[in-house]
Amino acid sequence: MRVLIPLFPGVTTLDAVGPYEVLRQLPGVEVHFPALTPGVVTDGANNLGLRADSAFAEFDSADVLVVPGGPGARPLQSDDVLLAWIARMHAGSRWTTSVCTGSLILGAAGLLRGLDATTHWSAVADLEAHGARYTEERVVVRDRVITAAGVSAGIDMALTLAERLAGPVPARAAQLSVEYDPQPPFDSGAPSKATPEVMAYVTERRRR
Amino acid sequence: MRVLIPLFPGVTTLDAVGPYEVLRQLPGVEVHFPALTPGVVTDGANNLGLRADSAFAEFDSADVLVVPGGPGARPLQSDDVLLAWIARMHAGSRWTTSVCTGSLILGAAGLLRGLDATTHWSAVADLEAHGARYTEERVVVRDRVITAAGVSAGIDMALTLAERLAGPVPARAAQLSVEYDPQPPFDSGAPSKATPEVMAYVTERRRR
Repeated sequence: MRVLIPLFPGVTTLDAVGPYEVLRQLPGVEVHFPALTPGVVTDGANNLGLRADSAFAEFDSADVLVVPGGPGARPLQSDDVLLAWIARMHAGSRWTTSVCTGSLILGAAGLLRGLDATTHWSAVADLEAHGARYTEERVVVRDRVITAAGVSAGIDMALTLAERLAGPVPARAAQLSVEYDPQPPFDSGAPSKATPEVMAYVTERRRR
Repeated sequence: MRVLIPLFPGVTTLDAVGPYEVLRQLPGVEVHFPALTPGVVTDGANNLGLRADSAFAEFDSADVLVVPGGPGARPLQSDDVLLAWIARMHAGSRWTTSVCTGSLILGAAGLLRGLDATTHWSAVADLEAHGARYTEERVVVRDRVITAAGVSAGIDMALTLAERLAGPVPARAAQLSVEYDPQPPFDSGAPSKATPEVMAYVTERRRR
């Protein structure tokens, strides 16, 4: 079973790495990280580099496509070469998925028209501009398209997907392997849960 | 504020990337990923490469040290050069932390003797061999040492640390930025929660 996680400059690393660490636990899975050209791509914060092990052009099909987001996802909404590749992969995939603003790439490729979907809370209007119906859930499964909310939601998405790909025991085993028994020390992980002060602080910092 | 996340071949990528995505949100933080020599290191599954942006030798001190784990952590328990560097960093750090089996490196460097600490559930005996008192909690804070349980626990650890480094609002803002409002689709993320069937499946696969 081939899982492709496309990389690009400005990717948010956790969007890619969270699903990777879950899905690679499943039997028979091979994960590749293609980019326009193989080599290191640098993340949105310009600190961490992930190595793309292959080029988009090397793949004609995938069983699972996981499109991460990040600041670099927005300009890709007008990258015709990438969007054509995404649409081609989707035509043959069992599951096409996104994390965070990776949904904007699926949307720009025309895959979310009329579909319920989610994205990072800061990108709702951009998602809707592609004809998707924003759904305020952490993981949205519709037909064979799964979209996840921001960044860390990719882990929940991947577990949801793992159960569909490999059944209940391997999916739960993957959760146990990465010891995903979350216990955040506070409860501010969604706009509905954040105080106005926290919301204002984040908004101000994201503006810079 | 300088955060160092040392990398090595066989690192589990989520151990490093989870804390990175949280801590990089804090004001005034710069994160570096040193390794023995700069360049790409490959993870435990031999699929994903992370780029080390610097060498251990470039750093004399750090405010925060985050030591990730992975299959590659075990051989490092006898790497005297690395262990001396870890001990030197710890001597001057505000916080010394580990994720997953990164705790075995802290232990081998002599930092956990007589201290409460945690690690991945599969490595409890190895942790205790270094004189630590294993504590079955997801994040263990003692003095200025914080250890986290397996893989994904690094996110919870980093939020705990973020509040101590930057205060309540920036820490909650970091949680909101990475939308860490976990909703796993099932509840099998710790040995105490896994069924015998899941436990047997994981144990068998880890043996290979």
